[in-house]
Amino acid sequence: MDYSRILEQIHADLQPWLDKGRVADYIPELAKVPVNSFGMAVVTTAGEVFRVGQADTRFSIQSISKLFACTMAFRLLGDTLWQRVGREPSGTAFNSLVQLEAEHGKPRNPFINAGALVVTDVLCRRFVKAETALVEFMRRVTGESTIDYDLRVAQSELLHAHRNRAMAHFMASFGNIEMPAEAVVDAYCRQCAISMSCVELAKAALFLSNGGVVPSTGERILDASSAKRLSALMLTCGTYDAAGDFVYRVGLPAKSGVGGGIVALLPGEMAVCVWSPGLDSNGNSLAGVLALEWLTTYTGRSIF
Amino acid sequence: MDYSRILEQIHADLQPWLDKGRVADYIPELAKVPVNSFGMAVVTTAGEVFRVGQADTRFSIQSISKLFACTMAFRLLGDTLWQRVGREPSGTAFNSLVQLEAEHGKPRNPFINAGALVVTDVLCRRFVKAETALVEFMRRVTGESTIDYDLRVAQSELLHAHRNRAMAHFMASFGNIEMPAEAVVDAYCRQCAISMSCVELAKAALFLSNGGVVPSTGERILDASSAKRLSALMLTCGTYDAAGDFVYRVGLPAKSGVGGGIVALLPGEMAVCVWSPGLDSNGNSLAGVLALEWLTTYTGRSIF
Amino acid sequence: MDYSRILEQIHADLQPWLDKGRVADYIPELAKVPVNSFGMAVVTTAGEVFRVGQADTRFSIQSISKLFACTMAFRLLGDTLWQRVGREPSGTAFNSLVQLEAEHGKPRNPFINAGALVVTDVLCRRFVKAETALVEFMRRVTGESTIDYDLRVAQSELLHAHRNRAMAHFMASFGNIEMPAEAVVDAYCRQCAISMSCVELAKAALFLSNGGVVPSTGERILDASSAKRLSALMLTCGTYDAAGDFVYRVGLPAKSGVGGGIVALLPGEMAVCVWSPGLDSNGNSLAGVLALEWLTTYTGRSIF
Amino acid sequence: MDYSRILEQIHADLQPWLDKGRVADYIPELAKVPVNSFGMAVVTTAGEVFRVGQADTRFSIQSISKLFACTMAFRLLGDTLWQRVGREPSGTAFNSLVQLEAEHGKPRNPFINAGALVVTDVLCRRFVKAETALVEFMRRVTGESTIDYDLRVAQSELLHAHRNRAMAHFMASFGNIEMPAEAVVDAYCRQCAISMSCVELAKAALFLSNGGVVPSTGERILDASSAKRLSALMLTCGTYDAAGDFVYRVGLPAKSGVGGGIVALLPGEMAVCVWSPGLDSNGNSLAGVLALEWLTTYTGRSIF
Repeated sequence: MDYSRILEQIHADLQPWLDKGRVADYIPELAKVPVNSFGMAVVTTAGEVFRVGQADTRFSIQSISKLFACTMAFRLLGDTLWQRVGREPSGTAFNSLVQLEAEHGKPRNPFINAGALVVTDVLCRRFVKAETALVEFMRRVTGESTIDYDLRVAQSELLHAHRNRAMAHFMASFGNIEMPAEAVVDAYCRQCAISMSCVELAKAALFLSNGGVVPSTGERILDASSAKRLSALMLTCGTYDAAGDFVYRVGLPAKSGVGGGIVALLPGEMAVCVWSPGLDSNGNSLAGVLALEWLTTYTGRSIF
Repeated sequence: MDYSRILEQIHADLQPWLDKGRVADYIPELAKVPVNSFGMAVVTTAGEVFRVGQADTRFSIQSISKLFACTMAFRLLGDTLWQRVGREPSGTAFNSLVQLEAEHGKPRNPFINAGALVVTDVLCRRFVKAETALVEFMRRVTGESTIDYDLRVAQSELLHAHRNRAMAHFMASFGNIEMPAEAVVDAYCRQCAISMSCVELAKAALFLSNGGVVPSTGERILDASSAKRLSALMLTCGTYDAAGDFVYRVGLPAKSGVGGGIVALLPGEMAVCVWSPGLDSNGNSLAGVLALEWLTTYTGRSIF
Repeated sequence: MDYSRILEQIHADLQPWLDKGRVADYIPELAKVPVNSFGMAVVTTAGEVFRVGQADTRFSIQSISKLFACTMAFRLLGDTLWQRVGREPSGTAFNSLVQLEAEHGKPRNPFINAGALVVTDVLCRRFVKAETALVEFMRRVTGESTIDYDLRVAQSELLHAHRNRAMAHFMASFGNIEMPAEAVVDAYCRQCAISMSCVELAKAALFLSNGGVVPSTGERILDASSAKRLSALMLTCGTYDAAGDFVYRVGLPAKSGVGGGIVALLPGEMAVCVWSPGLDSNGNSLAGVLALEWLTTYTGRSIF
Repeated sequence: MDYSRILEQIHADLQPWLDKGRVADYIPELAKVPVNSFGMAVVTTAGEVFRVGQADTRFSIQSISKLFACTMAFRLLGDTLWQRVGREPSGTAFNSLVQLEAEHGKPRNPFINAGALVVTDVLCRRFVKAETALVEFMRRVTGESTIDYDLRVAQSELLHAHRNRAMAHFMASFGNIEMPAEAVVDAYCRQCAISMSCVELAKAALFLSNGGVVPSTGERILDASSAKRLSALMLTCGTYDAAGDFVYRVGLPAKSGVGGGIVALLPGEMAVCVWSPGLDSNGNSLAGVLALEWLTTYTGRSIF
């Protein structure tokens, strides 16, 4: 399918929406990004790349890093990972502690902050520097050797990480964080601060649409069944407490971040990444969700 | 695809699992069903029917009725329905009141009890007898004129409906139940008591896999987009608080009931219904979930 | 002690506060009472009566009825009453269902609505008409044979009793309401609709300050230890979710109602009732709490 | 009143109960104390001291330190302290985070862990070493210059302080911890590790029964009104989630600790401290609560 025209149509239609959302301001560094930034890229399993707007501008991937960190932990532990973190939608805000207390320190899924901290704990146990291991993974699956995390963003996050520290210590009290809580939060903040472009993120996620294999290199990241399962997790848990609404409107597995990026998959065919920093009330990119909704409407392609 | 052999293989493999679950006993009438009952049917959009075991034995559809009641309410109200009931996974047990209190009487989705009561309230406002309207809908989409609800099951449910009454009155206190609460609970219990077989339920759900049109009659029930959207809701909310796990393992939109039935869809291709009354700890058919998991494994077909 | 001057001083000082609260409007009948109404009465165990303002005007006692209904149930069941209702502050709003769900249908204490419904259930089991039994109890301990419940208020409450019905059915689902839920709610609403004056309510509560014996008649209502224990319950649970603040400011056991009345005790010495219909954000009489705070400040008398 | 005989009677009656409770074992150092230890001391405002059992043996005062830390913070800030910490019973376990999340980081009262951390934060802001300031306060009000905290207990607590760290960071995320969270938790653990005997603790609390003045030295710690108010707080919040039950059974303001100590007041007359390390399911000394219940029964003296 030729996505060029569709991406351009979406870009044109989005103009009145680009300044409607609210840029994340809990981290000063993120608040500096112009609200009307926009980029979108489709990368197909056949190797085609379609782009519109600032598709090659790097931005802070934030929670999209949880998808790749989870992939790495899943490779290490397989299904035993699910003994420490669940696979259910949380039904509460992404940084809530209520659920953790009721469920004895086991987070609902790896895409809320608590679950991502457990995933990072797994990586911290295996790698000297979990954040470096994730950066290297990103470089490998994209072939882009300049990908790195932004130190200023990481430091800014660390200054405002009280809630994440609270969650890490809380889970430690239940025995579900094994490494020192401060170290886990440090690595987590650095992972979130990785900078990548739409094209790079779509390339990075493409193995999930391609049965677990990176198309450009043939490297197997996951077996086919595991790739489907991570896609299933994205579908039910990838967009915070709006997963039901997102699946209803868009119908694609996806993972979003408060930097304004969203990565989505059409299994067997392509991966797409959209970026627009203005967020809706659920913390997802307002224009980004619209762009993906229109993409599935215009193409008639979704998982349903 | 020829599903005959696959269904027989599944039936054979399931033997050791058929007595493992626990038959719902909160309603005495349901507790009388033999735990090792089993049936399964696949109906394709092309008109083929594949069956194994007691695929023509009727059982109590229970919460599967919520899928069809929601279809009727969605036809009546369109997207305004979502002003009264959400589209998000609940993150709590199917009959919890905690979420209702925190969210001012608006249930999380139409497939938990509270949401289904709101749906029934919509139907009670439009039809003199909501349960009769649903029975007639079922007869029409299946072509089976003998489908009806089981009066003894309905009466048994009404005797044990304290929790549903509590929820109906509670939502009435927020203005989200408009008809008399007792009447809504009465209609709801009768809907849940409808008896249908696996073949009948698969036929009834087939319009959702076929762009909103009943293949055998050509009757349009929903437009194509609405059919996809209801499928999306089934995916994220159709199997109680285990939706994440179900999507992870099975990868099909589905709706389950405590009578042991589960209806699932492979969009564009078929609908399937499995029945085995032994339930797992989430209230889903234990053998039924396994059967669907093996079905997608053996066929390699899922939405991912 | 001569309370005359103190009451008059309080009455004078309260003038600017009498229109500051908000009259309960969830029941239309209650909303008709002029917000600047005010009365206060002290009745001593020695038989003296001190009054100021509209101390002989009857008003709707509302939740103050819970104190006397609890006394009656405690007489019937003794400490076995506490198997069905707790003795702890709730930490949540007076009509919350969250706690009930977490604690399996056992209300935290008899002075929140859920607990009062259990108490009424006890009375409904023992008396043909629980509300009549309570009216007769009130007549007996005050010597006022014209005390009765206001039928229009009761009917108004019944039309707005969705939340109470929800709680009654909810507790029935846990087996903690034994009589038909509708009948229990009916009796409860009638009890709340009893009309009494400040002088009458102070007289009615006086046995609790007098070791369980009505001073004017010598009738023993409770043994001395039980009277102390009910006073303890009033202290920790008598003023909704503001009990801590009330004890901090006033330092007397008390029970309030949304009709604007508050009954308080100085054990061994007197009972006091104040009435002013303007409520604070916790549902307690705004001027009433002030009046009691000044009473303990001016007299230097409290339980501490 | 001569308390000698009463204390001996209580000691005799308690024999079968002394091994019934469960010694706190979440801190290894505490678990070493023999379960059948027992001491009790009454100190009157007139200067008399009555003792029985190991009334001069020092034990870990644990949460009883919260009473004195709160006194110090209240002296510093007066009623502005209540902007940062409430005065209501929590209705939940002493170390719950659920309430904190719902109420935006403001703890319910200064006697649950979260509230005590805020109090310590106040002290950390004012004093270079908050724990030393509290030790000096204890020495001053008792005249015992050897009182100190036990370094091994403090270190043991710090190794198991994940939950307290979680709460401190969590409140910091709401801006309600101003000093570094780690430093606040460190000072808090040291305060809890102070060792004192029953006689010393009863002497230390006596100013609260004496209008705010230490009887032996005449030093005013609080004005009379503030002393009453702290007593009110002890009554409603001093014994964890069992305050209602404690007031019902004992009828005295009190503060307990998991080291097995309980300090209680009879305003105007005396302070009492009992110690027995076996705890009940609420974390209060099992034999200690019984001893105080019998004390008020035998003497007929309580606040009611």
